[in-house]
Amino acid sequence: MLPGRTCTHTLLFAQLITPDGKNHGLHGFLVPIRDPHTLEVYPGLIVGDMGEKIGVNGIDNGFIMFNKYRIPRVNLLNRTADVTEEGVYESSFSEPSRILGAALENLSAGRIGIMQESCHSISSLVAIAIRYAATRKQFGERQNETALIEYELHQWRLFGYVAAAVVFRFYLQNFANVYLQIVEKSNSGDGVDNLTEAVSEIHAMVSCSKPLLTWTVLEAAQQCREACGGHGYLKVANIGDIRSNHEPTVTYEGDNNVLSQQTGNWLLKQYEAVLNGHDVDSPLGTVTFLKDIKTILNSTFTCKTTDEMKNPKFILSTYKWLLCWLIKYTHEKNEAELAKGLTKMQARSRSQVYRWRTLTKVYAEYLALVFCLESIEKTEAQLLPVLKKLFCLYGLWSLDKHLVEMYQGGFSKGEELARLLRAAILEMCADLKTEVVSVVDALAPTDFVLNSVLGKSDGNLYQHLQKAFFSHPGAFERAPWWRDVVKSKL
Amino acid sequence: MLPGRTCTHTLLFAQLITPDGKNHGLHGFLVPIRDPHTLEVYPGLIVGDMGEKIGVNGIDNGFIMFNKYRIPRVNLLNRTADVTEEGVYESSFSEPSRILGAALENLSAGRIGIMQESCHSISSLVAIAIRYAATRKQFGERQNETALIEYELHQWRLFGYVAAAVVFRFYLQNFANVYLQIVEKSNSGDGVDNLTEAVSEIHAMVSCSKPLLTWTVLEAAQQCREACGGHGYLKVANIGDIRSNHEPTVTYEGDNNVLSQQTGNWLLKQYEAVLNGHDVDSPLGTVTFLKDIKTILNSTFTCKTTDEMKNPKFILSTYKWLLCWLIKYTHEKNEAELAKGLTKMQARSRSQVYRWRTLTKVYAEYLALVFCLESIEKTEAQLLPVLKKLFCLYGLWSLDKHLVEMYQGGFSKGEELARLLRAAILEMCADLKTEVVSVVDALAPTDFVLNSVLGKSDGNLYQHLQKAFFSHPGAFERAPWWRDVVKSKL
Repeated sequence: MLPGRTCTHTLLFAQLITPDGKNHGLHGFLVPIRDPHTLEVYPGLIVGDMGEKIGVNGIDNGFIMFNKYRIPRVNLLNRTADVTEEGVYESSFSEPSRILGAALENLSAGRIGIMQESCHSISSLVAIAIRYAATRKQFGERQNETALIEYELHQWRLFGYVAAAVVFRFYLQNFANVYLQIVEKSNSGDGVDNLTEAVSEIHAMVSCSKPLLTWTVLEAAQQCREACGGHGYLKVANIGDIRSNHEPTVTYEGDNNVLSQQTGNWLLKQYEAVLNGHDVDSPLGTVTFLKDIKTILNSTFTCKTTDEMKNPKFILSTYKWLLCWLIKYTHEKNEAELAKGLTKMQARSRSQVYRWRTLTKVYAEYLALVFCLESIEKTEAQLLPVLKKLFCLYGLWSLDKHLVEMYQGGFSKGEELARLLRAAILEMCADLKTEVVSVVDALAPTDFVLNSVLGKSDGNLYQHLQKAFFSHPGAFERAPWWRDVVKSKL
Repeated sequence: MLPGRTCTHTLLFAQLITPDGKNHGLHGFLVPIRDPHTLEVYPGLIVGDMGEKIGVNGIDNGFIMFNKYRIPRVNLLNRTADVTEEGVYESSFSEPSRILGAALENLSAGRIGIMQESCHSISSLVAIAIRYAATRKQFGERQNETALIEYELHQWRLFGYVAAAVVFRFYLQNFANVYLQIVEKSNSGDGVDNLTEAVSEIHAMVSCSKPLLTWTVLEAAQQCREACGGHGYLKVANIGDIRSNHEPTVTYEGDNNVLSQQTGNWLLKQYEAVLNGHDVDSPLGTVTFLKDIKTILNSTFTCKTTDEMKNPKFILSTYKWLLCWLIKYTHEKNEAELAKGLTKMQARSRSQVYRWRTLTKVYAEYLALVFCLESIEKTEAQLLPVLKKLFCLYGLWSLDKHLVEMYQGGFSKGEELARLLRAAILEMCADLKTEVVSVVDALAPTDFVLNSVLGKSDGNLYQHLQKAFFSHPGAFERAPWWRDVVKSKL
């Protein structure tokens, strides 16, 4: 996508074909498309705006078509590969399939930016829905209606997203720092140990975290809208606009389903290293536990009470079991498909559903939890209790989505696992009820920025709603065609 | 909700308080609100339009406030209860809590209408996404990109919704007929056996089916949008508008989460009858199997191959097991909460998550399957093979969401259940690949009605996209403020 009415240059990925007719695959080019003095499009190009979209209409996303368009050789972005004046292709990579990957790895910063935007969006969404839930009363005992937040179902629908908003924020704060330090060191020529490996690990982390965060926020938007009922459907609730503007993030900068395949590649490579008796290449330490895969896979569920589950140790060790099992399960399928004679691409394609895809999602949740925990353990002691609760709720609420794999992989055979895990989640929700409004107050932007009639910080929901209704232009006017629909007395 | 700028009368549910000060709870009233000759609002009322919404802005949904507003006594909708001229309350119901339910049961027709709309929406959605998938090529071997529909992940993401579109349509066709026959007989005074029981059963069926259908269509809209990538985000794709206009159906005519509680009430009542050695009150026969609950709960998963699972018998018998287990599981929790001294309302509220809510969803899926199967068995023999495949895909794809309960309830302890069920789903997807375009061609409305540049029936995706881009007003114009952003040479 590129701005369709204003931009002068575009960064283009196109196939590089040298004079000898050889196609070297996708490479990056810097392509001038408009005269910077007049913004007129250069001959040989058709460039324009794509038209109205579901959201972000402030951006003029464009289309472009090339017809025998020439650009100078030096406009090839040549960090990973170049073409000499004589037309000879040169690359520092021995494996051609790595070249595109290396170029794409530079897109991490943009994806981290998307994750940060996602953190803001989910904070606004849960602030609106929780404030509404605390002030809106419906049903209950006659004469004494019950606030929505009192209903267990309502807590369960929303509090997991509040926890996600907090965990994602701490995760990103911590992870962005780690990332920026590596970039800084690398740029200053200071030398980072295992720079290539660190960049690959970061790419793997970003490639599954951007999907996790953007999808979770999209689900949160839907759940928050529904939790505010018909009022949530009003434009002045602002949930619709937040949702519509967030929506494309699951597609751009790498479609989530495609992007997360990058993570799977890296994870399987690390697993293969372990299988072959080598060390994993994990400078950030996110998968060093793989060396203990045999021990981890032998562990099983032994909790007898929900209290044993409501702690980081249980949550993280269960995640490690899940990751080990899913890596093995995915790898086995991929190998079986390769053994049938399929290409790498075909084999991978047939290992996505229930395997690769689940694996990368679980890895992203694990990363969020590990980096969040490290971060909250450094915060003020006063905040620690509520932050730990939110951490545990997010962990258990996320594990709930992987119960099938836990049963399938033999982590537990009894009915206790599902029963206790789910009981623990509901207990955490009840436990957080009195604190959750303060939590969203801490997350929310100012009322002006939140811009939602349902989510004002003063809690005067009904007054604000009434004001919004009354001040809507034309609210009290008859439709202009009213005379056409009544039987006139005249 | 009521039209805010035009309507002359409203149907209002309000608390009925008799002169003796007694509050008899919610009752229906017919309330005049505007002079039918001038459309001016009557004194004592504040009525207006609610303003812009996420969608359906062609409807002027309104708000209304009453200030000591008087209406005649005869405007009480008095089929279930009345007030005499002397101000004495009279009802044919011995149990006051049944009165509101009886009034609400009359809303079935409206909800069936919503389900029919939902069937149209999902048909349009899958038609767009499947036609796009069949024509849009991305990645694959160099020089020879692969159509999206070839990817197993893409099939899995979409084909379940195609199957849902077909199953829902057959379900509704069959069920609406049953419903209308009962209404007709009832109105003609012909006498229907067990009319009250039949109405209750229909109310229970509608109260979970409207949630199932409307939620499934909303998920389908999201999945179809994502499956069409950035193109799906274009307004001309029409997915955004279909989605936004469908969105409120999960809230109106009974919020899905609240409405489905009605189904749970009825199911638990039937289960209690069985526990007490009585017959179930199920004139439509949807839960007569409950009498065999002991035998059903003793059955376990015994399939050794996916072929054994790809048939209606396995699917329906598994659903019966699930329903029996969930009814028991929900009832036990509800009873345990009542035993603690909670009110009925509180106990029910604490039995929703993972229990009541899941139970009513599973029951709705079961109904869709049973009524669909009955209906497709009567169609042309030629169509039967593909319809049976779609039936099986919908059944297995829906069961996949309840694997946790199957493991938790001991239907299976091994890893085979999840592995085989999921393998069967992927096999069904692969099997349907060559037929799925014809299926959506049968479901889709005309191109003019579908109104999507991505989903035209001629398959000329790229040409239509190009035409849409080129004909968008202002597509090739510079932004009006272009002079402000360039360094002028002049």
